[in-house]
Amino acid sequence: MKKIGVIIASTREGRVGRSIAEYVLTQVTQSPHIVYDLIDLKAENLPFNDEPMPAVRHQYQHAHTLKWSQKINSYDGFVIVTPEYNHGYPAPLKNALDMLYIEWNDKPVALVGYGYSASGTRSIEQLRQVLTYLQLKPVWREVNINLATVLKEGVFHGDDGLNEATKAVLADLEKALA
Amino acid sequence: MKKIGVIIASTREGRVGRSIAEYVLTQVTQSPHIVYDLIDLKAENLPFNDEPMPAVRHQYQHAHTLKWSQKINSYDGFVIVTPEYNHGYPAPLKNALDMLYIEWNDKPVALVGYGYSASGTRSIEQLRQVLTYLQLKPVWREVNINLATVLKEGVFHGDDGLNEATKAVLADLEKALA
Repeated sequence: MKKIGVIIASTREGRVGRSIAEYVLTQVTQSPHIVYDLIDLKAENLPFNDEPMPAVRHQYQHAHTLKWSQKINSYDGFVIVTPEYNHGYPAPLKNALDMLYIEWNDKPVALVGYGYSASGTRSIEQLRQVLTYLQLKPVWREVNINLATVLKEGVFHGDDGLNEATKAVLADLEKALA
Repeated sequence: MKKIGVIIASTREGRVGRSIAEYVLTQVTQSPHIVYDLIDLKAENLPFNDEPMPAVRHQYQHAHTLKWSQKINSYDGFVIVTPEYNHGYPAPLKNALDMLYIEWNDKPVALVGYGYSASGTRSIEQLRQVLTYLQLKPVWREVNINLATVLKEGVFHGDDGLNEATKAVLADLEKALA
């Protein structure tokens, strides 16, 4: 049995990220071999990384780092649902990534970005460089969501095009898991 | 009188960033018209941004955001001293940047990056995109510090080449202030 975590990168009040992550789960093909669940960085409530040693040394001194390490260790792959803030990735996501190293290594990751004019593409471009450095394996396709088209009175609504794009990326991810 | 803040982007225990920021201050040409001081993100101790409205709306609800806004408002320009973590910028810096908007607009900024193999250049490349989006004005030259050459038994030591590079970048910054 393989386990995939859908990481909600935004922790802001009023974030749309949680709705998008829940939507991603509705697009999963039921399989007896793969389970998906949510990893909500708001619920994880990690502090800014305060470990004295670089994560690559794997000598964690704080209980919250050890707990995060054990959690990420238990997954075989990830979907990251991320907003774009000022052309880049959000701080809570970068903090959660930088806190660990070997726990991310060699695991596939699919990217779902959202935003207005650029649909999260610039955040994902910067993020691909970081993920690659952590030896995560980003899949080729990605989901780019323009909030101007999917938010109706502040509530997220998918459509056929988005369903198709999301299923395609999840298929890439599941293939990379194998 | 113009005021420049030297932002220490790393908040990690054992960070070398504070020593590098203090070194930058030793390279400043004394002027009756410009004062420099340190803005230490570890001392600022900002939480992850939890404002319900985007910073661009300038409708802050939390006392810590208002305090940070007033502080950044009081400066005319910045030097950012930043490490490189996994090819990107550190989370505490991105958080501090994303928390505000108009307070950064139209102010020049000089960049001092540090790291090992890449001397902080990749962190700065990603950061230039973010700073430009915030309408900060990054100066053309930058300082790139290879920690393998400037740390002697864990303690930072500048040298003539670094002094020259730092003075050149500060001259660019002061010219952009005028």
